Amino acid sequence: MNTPKITLVGAGPGDADLISLRGLKALRQSRVILYDALVNEDLLDYAPYGAICKFVGKRFGQHSCSQEEINELLVKYAKSHGSVVRLKGGDPFVFGRGGEEVAYALQYGIEVDIIPGISSSVGVAGLQGIPVTHRGVAESFWVITGSTTAGVLSQDIFHAAKTNATVVVLMGLNKLGEIREVYKEQGKGGVAVAVIQNGSLPDEQIVLGTIDTIVEQVASRGIGAPAVIVIGDVVALHANFDALPYKTLAI
Amino acid sequence: MNTPKITLVGAGPGDADLISLRGLKALRQSRVILYDALVNEDLLDYAPYGAICKFVGKRFGQHSCSQEEINELLVKYAKSHGSVVRLKGGDPFVFGRGGEEVAYALQYGIEVDIIPGISSSVGVAGLQGIPVTHRGVAESFWVITGSTTAGVLSQDIFHAAKTNATVVVLMGLNKLGEIREVYKEQGKGGVAVAVIQNGSLPDEQIVLGTIDTIVEQVASRGIGAPAVIVIGDVVALHANFDALPYKTLAI
Repeated sequence: MNTPKITLVGAGPGDADLISLRGLKALRQSRVILYDALVNEDLLDYAPYGAICKFVGKRFGQHSCSQEEINELLVKYAKSHGSVVRLKGGDPFVFGRGGEEVAYALQYGIEVDIIPGISSSVGVAGLQGIPVTHRGVAESFWVITGSTTAGVLSQDIFHAAKTNATVVVLMGLNKLGEIREVYKEQGKGGVAVAVIQNGSLPDEQIVLGTIDTIVEQVASRGIGAPAVIVIGDVVALHANFDALPYKTLAI
Repeated sequence: MNTPKITLVGAGPGDADLISLRGLKALRQSRVILYDALVNEDLLDYAPYGAICKFVGKRFGQHSCSQEEINELLVKYAKSHGSVVRLKGGDPFVFGRGGEEVAYALQYGIEVDIIPGISSSVGVAGLQGIPVTHRGVAESFWVITGSTTAGVLSQDIFHAAKTNATVVVLMGLNKLGEIREVYKEQGKGGVAVAVIQNGSLPDEQIVLGTIDTIVEQVASRGIGAPAVIVIGDVVALHANFDALPYKTLAI
């Protein structure tokens, strides 16, 4: 019998090759893998023969596990099977409730290991050639969730709109109209915005625009979740930005 | 003759196994690798036989390349050898001047590819069990450089100290005293802080404290660069935080 152990592994933004080598090795040594909706299922090919691979994510129209159920499954499988990998999209600690899973497991005295992943907040913009930081343009970036516990727009967006930080919003597509209003109140309707759906995957789509134009562009292009929103002057460094006709629409 | 191509690859925080699988594949197909000081040299073992591996980083007491020299080398080698990998610590676009390298290469019509990496800003805290976001504690994180172009403390720190965001400062160890003063002016002397040197490497060290105590702790423990500074209530989630005697020193 193996010692109970839970390893939180960040799978990266979506492309299976964006997992770390250490994460891949953990998958190969696992007895059980519990994985989320945004995890690339090709990664399950690395599971050893006979390992249990269980989907615990949220998908439209399917029963999904609550966080409490996931916590309990992690501990149950660790006790019964030994090495459990909790495979999470992006990085396990960026809006992934990974901290809650760790705290729960530690209550039961189970060893927990963390293997970070490439967070979509940095990697998805980067894959498009948008640097979240750039000398003379942005000396910081601020990553904010669009889906707070209370379901309302994070207060951090109001602060962020007043700064020169590159702002990256995850899980915020349905708040894009509200975000636009916050920026417009700061007189920042002309600031560059990118919305990137399915970053790093073959069906990736990007919309480049400004605060003033982005909501209509996203709607007309039919962009949906999961999407990363990047706001700030660094977006204008995208190779296609200068060629955009709707730039002239910016006030 | 191979087509000239430059691939910016993020090597991750330090441990060689924290590179992505895609990054590893790029190394294996490279003819030339230009790498930085914070890159783990074990990664050069993935270079094909005969590939040129050139150190272009900054190390105390050694001649180092200027950014202009690096830009020129990238283009020169791409033209003469074909596939060049620019191997950078962390993620190529997080304070790595990757954006400048891309812009320079594109001027010469050379194809550029980006392979993101695990940024130390997220990964180093995570490896220590500190989640940069946590439900009910922090719904955002803000990553700021301690080394601005002008050499002064980033204005973003002054804004950040007023918010509830987890604040991560890279390359800021020599500004720790100034950062403390900024937080104290906001009445935040009791906020938890972690300083992590050589994150993910065998000689990793962590100091846990508060704004009021951290400068002295770092000095007495002899912590040096490279180090990641994490400021915010999430730091108190570290397994050892509650046991710290100096917590009682916090005002």
